Amino acid sequence: MKISARNRLKGKVVEVTKGATTAHVRIDVGGSVVTASITNEAVDELGLKVGDNAYAVVKASDVMVAID
Amino acid sequence: MKISARNRLKGKVVEVTKGATTAHVRIDVGGSVVTASITNEAVDELGLKVGDNAYAVVKASDVMVAID
Amino acid sequence: MKISARNRLKGKVVEVTKGATTAHVRIDVGGSVVTASITNEAVDELGLKVGDNAYAVVKASDVMVAID
Amino acid sequence: MKISARNRLKGKVVEVTKGATTAHVRIDVGGSVVTASITNEAVDELGLKVGDNAYAVVKASDVMVAID
Amino acid sequence: MKISARNRLKGKVVEVTKGATTAHVRIDVGGSVVTASITNEAVDELGLKVGDNAYAVVKASDVMVAID
Amino acid sequence: MKISARNRLKGKVVEVTKGATTAHVRIDVGGSVVTASITNEAVDELGLKVGDNAYAVVKASDVMVAID
Repeated sequence: MKISARNRLKGKVVEVTKGATTAHVRIDVGGSVVTASITNEAVDELGLKVGDNAYAVVKASDVMVAID
Repeated sequence: MKISARNRLKGKVVEVTKGATTAHVRIDVGGSVVTASITNEAVDELGLKVGDNAYAVVKASDVMVAID
Repeated sequence: MKISARNRLKGKVVEVTKGATTAHVRIDVGGSVVTASITNEAVDELGLKVGDNAYAVVKASDVMVAID
Repeated sequence: MKISARNRLKGKVVEVTKGATTAHVRIDVGGSVVTASITNEAVDELGLKVGDNAYAVVKASDVMVAID
Repeated sequence: MKISARNRLKGKVVEVTKGATTAHVRIDVGGSVVTASITNEAVDELGLKVGDNAYAVVKASDVMVAID
Repeated sequence: MKISARNRLKGKVVEVTKGATTAHVRIDVGGSVVTASITNEAVDELGLKVGDNAYAVVKASDVMVAID
């Protein structure tokens, strides 16, 4: 599947924490850790676990810009 | 200002394209280019231009995970 | 690529309208038309045009529920 | 109330799962099941339960497009 | 229609600016001006114009928290 | 940090409820209560508690408009 989302950052899963319905998955992308809040079901369906290669994917309209 | 958004990726602005109301700002974060779709007003208010240091900021609930 | 987004509705592209930076793509999914607002670049990269098979993809945290 | 969100898919609630703070509501819209991640409070306020008629509502800027 | 979105701020439309595909609507909610980026089609369908009563509606998962 | 998000509503925290992974923070902004669904980690990092001054921050593309 090819998706329209502009941002696909390749990395490695460093943490998977399941909650009651919502899981947090942390992906190390070149030294920065990106946190994704996704459903527990998605974690199961993708079989996500620490050490896996994975992408953090973000739609351009969900990215903000900040300056110091 | 300190913000709750979990993801703040530091980089450098490599492109600013204004549309009629919506601008696209591209930030190089460690070799990956992140595209942000923000308002023209935000570009003006932050004075964003190519070469500036900037952060791509994303709320954790807006990050998806993908695998090959 | 397999993505964590829970919602992938299969359909056919019925309209592609490009703006200055933002495009609107309409996909007929079983009789309902879903509108996606994505970047012009995504339209070009995916080569989207009327009549193509396509999926409308939505993260679960972006879906609201309404009743009459 | 009339809302600007472009996408309102009519269906029937097929599952309501409450978590600690976040609930998952699944709505069958013409054979496809759409998952919504909303607050427990919203589930209570709308009185959502299996079998109810409901709409899955999505803002156009939260819809992505994918192709095979 | 009753919607699950937790945040409905009542106010008055103070500006409507249409772009090529995306419009900006500004709503004064008790002295603060909220900017909404919505489709031109939504502006037309709701017939939004300066002086109208309107609500700014936001899903709880799209609200961040910041401190000074 | 200055952020591109157009909407920053100043108020006071009136409730903090942590779930398994996701917290709900309610901020009174001039008499209206805004609900934010953020990660437990963000609550801890910002040290959010009832009575604190805080801003509800929302990207313009996440604001919808509704009329009665």
